[in-house]
This record gives sequence, C-alpha cells and structure tokens, in this order.
Amino acid sequence: MMTQTEMTKPANKVKASTPSEREVRTERIFNAPRERVWKAFTDPKLLAQWWGRGNKLVIERMELVRGGHWRFVEHAPEGVHGFEGRYREVTPPERIVQSFEWDGMPGYVCIETMTLEDLGDGRTRVVSTTLFHTKEERDGMLNSGMTEGLEQGYAVLDRLLETMA
Amino acid sequence: MMTQTEMTKPANKVKASTPSEREVRTERIFNAPRERVWKAFTDPKLLAQWWGRGNKLVIERMELVRGGHWRFVEHAPEGVHGFEGRYREVTPPERIVQSFEWDGMPGYVCIETMTLEDLGDGRTRVVSTTLFHTKEERDGMLNSGMTEGLEQGYAVLDRLLETMA
Repeated sequence: MMTQTEMTKPANKVKASTPSEREVRTERIFNAPRERVWKAFTDPKLLAQWWGRGNKLVIERMELVRGGHWRFVEHAPEGVHGFEGRYREVTPPERIVQSFEWDGMPGYVCIETMTLEDLGDGRTRVVSTTLFHTKEERDGMLNSGMTEGLEQGYAVLDRLLETMA
Repeated sequence: MMTQTEMTKPANKVKASTPSEREVRTERIFNAPRERVWKAFTDPKLLAQWWGRGNKLVIERMELVRGGHWRFVEHAPEGVHGFEGRYREVTPPERIVQSFEWDGMPGYVCIETMTLEDLGDGRTRVVSTTLFHTKEERDGMLNSGMTEGLEQGYAVLDRLLETMA
C-alpha cells in the first residue's frame, strides 16, 4: 500500500532526445545521493540486480578501468542476450565512457558517455549520451525499445537504491 | 639482385583518400589472384607473417565468422601493441567487415570494410574503407602513420604471395 507521500511524489521518468542525427541522449533523476548511484552502477553485485530489468544477469567480465572489458548476459523470457564493450574512461563518482555492442548485431559499436550529476538535494541526475556510426544505427536502437528497456531497468534501480539507504 | 622485369615493373603502392570527413579509403593492387590474397588475409598462419609489418605477431584470437572476435598483438621494436575487434561480416572470397580498436586508445572503435576485387588478369585490388565516430578520430589515425604502416605490411604481403604461388 502506498503512503500519501509516495502517491503525490512525481515519478522520475526517462527523458529522451536526439541532440544530433547520430546521437541519443537520455536523462533520469534518482532519489539518492551520487555516491550511492555510482555504487549501484559500478559494483557488479549491485549492477547485476537491476541492469537486466529484473531478469537474471550474468556479469561475465567487468574490468572497470580504462581499457578494461565488460560483458553482460541477460536471460530474458524471450531469449538470452549478450552485451559487451570496453571502458574508455572511468572517473569516480561522475563519469564513465564505454563502447557498447549487442551480440545480435556484432560489429555495430556505439559509444556511451554517462555522467552522474549531484543535484545537491540528495538526488542525482544520470545523463547518458550514445553516439552511433550512422543515423540508421541510431534509429534502429531507438526503434528497438531502448527507452522502454532503460525505463524498466531504472525502475528496478529505484527500488535497489531505497534498500541501499 | 633485381631482374630486368622487376626493375621495370611499376611498384604497387597504397592510394589513400578521404571520401568523407569520418572515413579513410585505401586501395592497393596485388600481383596475385583473389583466392590467394583471400587466403593470406584469412589463414592465421599466413596473416601472422605479414600483418605485423615484419614484426612478430601473436594471433590470440581469430574467430573468422560473423560475431567472432579477433585480437592480434604486434611485438615491434618500439613496443608491444594490441589490436582487437569483432567480425560483422565475412563473405569469402570478397568481403570482410570488422570493428578495429587499438589498446592505446581503448573504447575508440572504427569499422573497416575490406573488399577484394578480382581484376581478371591474375591481380587483385584490395579496397579498405574505415569509418570513425568522429573526424578527430579519423585525423588521429591518419596522423599516426596509418598509410605508412599499411604500406610496410603490404610490402611483406607481396613477398608472401610470391612464395604461395
């Protein structure tokens, strides 16, 4: 049962935009301080709990340093999906730049730049900008339900951040 | 000592151009039929003999199918350089599309499309087009001596193709 506060609190939703024809930008506010959000993005045990949108996520590799590789496998009801990439920059607690590739389209590689902004009131804004090689790849990602998938994962993250308080 | 034929035969040189601000295109003719050139590009034992420009090359991974990974380590006098990527398309004997990343700039990923054109006279033209995420990355690659490195490797390949005849 929701409390009065929860019922009136505006939901934090993903805002998506396309700053250029090869980019997608998303932003989302979390009701948690930046250090806690950073931890949920960088501790493999925590990341595994929300990145897969509630599905089982196997973190095969997560070498969170410049040049390190990452590989996550999501076991969703509709199938198993592998994702991988490499870290270009890791700057705690505010910025990660990494390549991103889905096994279903191997050799199509986009670059994600994620920043965590401390809003100064105990909340954090996560801004993610993804750059593709072509507009067609960008549009394909948008049409694949990227924003909806992100929304699902972030909803699970909301609950995880509460339990970390 | 060169024979008269070798002295008068025009040298095959790399022609490089920039078809767009995020691309580099190179082409090079080889005095060998396409099947032989394809073999020299796809048989790890042969590739290891020329890709490193005469330096020792360790092929750590070369899964030459769509979705497969590759990783080569060149042991040059000035240092050890790792390169890696993933195959987007492998179409014998004419086309390979793959991602390409140098360990020195992790997370900067370009896409190479290589085609082998049968010139019908026992020669083969290899055309390689590389697409970068930004113009700056493209210019950085050009300024790193990309064409010269390619020329060195192809010169070794010329000699290998002769021995394969």
